[in-house]
Amino acid sequence: MAASEASIDDRAADFFAGLQDRITDAIERIDGGGRFREDSWTRPAGGGGRTRLLADGALFEKAGVGFSDVHGQLRPEMARALPGDGADFRATGLSLIFHPRSPRIPTVHANVRHVRHGSRSWFGGGTDLTPYYVVADDAAHFHRTLRQRCDRHDPGFYPRFKRWCDEYFFLPHRNEPRGVGGLFFDYLGAGAEATAGQPAPGEQAPRENDAEAMFAFVREVGDAVLDAYLPIVERRRGDAWGERERRWQLLRRGRYVEFNLLYDRGTVFGLRTDGRVESILMSLPPEVRWEYAQAPEPGSPEAESLAAICARRDWAELGSV
Amino acid sequence: MAASEASIDDRAADFFAGLQDRITDAIERIDGGGRFREDSWTRPAGGGGRTRLLADGALFEKAGVGFSDVHGQLRPEMARALPGDGADFRATGLSLIFHPRSPRIPTVHANVRHVRHGSRSWFGGGTDLTPYYVVADDAAHFHRTLRQRCDRHDPGFYPRFKRWCDEYFFLPHRNEPRGVGGLFFDYLGAGAEATAGQPAPGEQAPRENDAEAMFAFVREVGDAVLDAYLPIVERRRGDAWGERERRWQLLRRGRYVEFNLLYDRGTVFGLRTDGRVESILMSLPPEVRWEYAQAPEPGSPEAESLAAICARRDWAELGSV
Repeated sequence: MAASEASIDDRAADFFAGLQDRITDAIERIDGGGRFREDSWTRPAGGGGRTRLLADGALFEKAGVGFSDVHGQLRPEMARALPGDGADFRATGLSLIFHPRSPRIPTVHANVRHVRHGSRSWFGGGTDLTPYYVVADDAAHFHRTLRQRCDRHDPGFYPRFKRWCDEYFFLPHRNEPRGVGGLFFDYLGAGAEATAGQPAPGEQAPRENDAEAMFAFVREVGDAVLDAYLPIVERRRGDAWGERERRWQLLRRGRYVEFNLLYDRGTVFGLRTDGRVESILMSLPPEVRWEYAQAPEPGSPEAESLAAICARRDWAELGSV
Repeated sequence: MAASEASIDDRAADFFAGLQDRITDAIERIDGGGRFREDSWTRPAGGGGRTRLLADGALFEKAGVGFSDVHGQLRPEMARALPGDGADFRATGLSLIFHPRSPRIPTVHANVRHVRHGSRSWFGGGTDLTPYYVVADDAAHFHRTLRQRCDRHDPGFYPRFKRWCDEYFFLPHRNEPRGVGGLFFDYLGAGAEATAGQPAPGEQAPRENDAEAMFAFVREVGDAVLDAYLPIVERRRGDAWGERERRWQLLRRGRYVEFNLLYDRGTVFGLRTDGRVESILMSLPPEVRWEYAQAPEPGSPEAESLAAICARRDWAELGSV
């Protein structure tokens, strides 16, 4: 590496910061009403970030896009749980979550990140779609967009990362997936031996040890999220809904909360590395309901949507578009 | 023990089942509108319970009272984390949580339980009060009632179990207690050596190894909950509230959800022992809000309530009643 060339850590941080700008611009445009409020923050133990939150927009009840670039010392139990050595770490990334007001528009989450821990560093991330009312064409559009972008890098990526996503975004206590999935990947570029024993299904391909190639892939995923999601927003924004659909949305949002607080690794990592709480928990939906032993009536649209989610279909092969 | 005498496990189960009847009767009476619906359930791996839920009552938006008596084999990591030996366990207990509609009436939680694990068995439980608007006299009444009942058994119990409650019902990521506390205790009757290394502040008194004495204490606590709580409901049921107070209640309920899903031992124990999900999660409030970086205005009643909660006062010594 020439002395004049920035490290991959710095270039990743620059990309994530620029991606945040592009995404918040696009969301304000499509929303047509709401504006992001930005909080810049510093982490006492090292680094900082900027959290952007749009609340009570015309389309989005809550849209959060966070950039962070933090560093310092990992607690021993966190250091043991990650590839790499020593306690020094730097983690930089972008996270987004959009909770639309309409129950006809799915919630989407995405994250792209670069982590350095001692002598190892890697990329991770993914995106997943959580519809309240599943429309096969929409799920197909989301997955096909992701598959097409993955295929530019490695034809094995989409099937592997789709499966990993299905396994990760799953609520064992409910025996339910969180939604219709998408992509999930981690430890890309860390080196095959560094990921031994890590929860990565499938084989580690040698190409994945090429940090530059993995950075290119992560840029592709980051740029693909809006292409995968915004056409669905446009298709569904005019669809009618009422109290019944709203109630179902609020109940399903309860599952989202359960996943994020019981299982989500990003939440746990953030809370255990003394991250900024409001930025970590900006993923939580604005309004939520829990009703005891609530189950949709057999044959109802809600029951059909839940069944479609539980079926974990090969969405890219379905739908008419 | 004479052959004709029931085991302490069975007598504890009988007491908890009877307590459920007394509590649901009293709650229906004071609510004056809602009725409990009962679900009897069996646990495939052993035992069962009956969950009673009152929804959309006149006073209570959601009131849950669960009795359970489950047994079977603990997973190895659970077995290691508890006093006792082997994998066989039996856990019986009563849990209740009342979420009133009015933000002027506090939420209350209580649990009393008996656990046997191999050659060891013990009692645990407690109760804690979560006001949205703190009224010192109400918190004082709650704590004084508990102190008086504790003192009948051991003058050291109230100060120790009050402190344990303050330590347990605490959200480290928010640096906030859940509410104004109450009592929390565990491993009573397990034997001093069985609780070595367990997170029990203070010294283990020899008396606590007397299972019959501890059973008497747990009966006292179980019977005290309504005496500690219902007078507060009567005092506050006529107090006015509007949208502002409702919003604050929904935001504070978010903290309740965060505690129960991130930290609550009962939730974790239940989910890790394949408990009945709807019964475990009946503690979650019916309607909840999360707003990004929401903090009450300085000097407002909401800010004062939060400050009173964070001060973790010696409530039994305060208030005018």
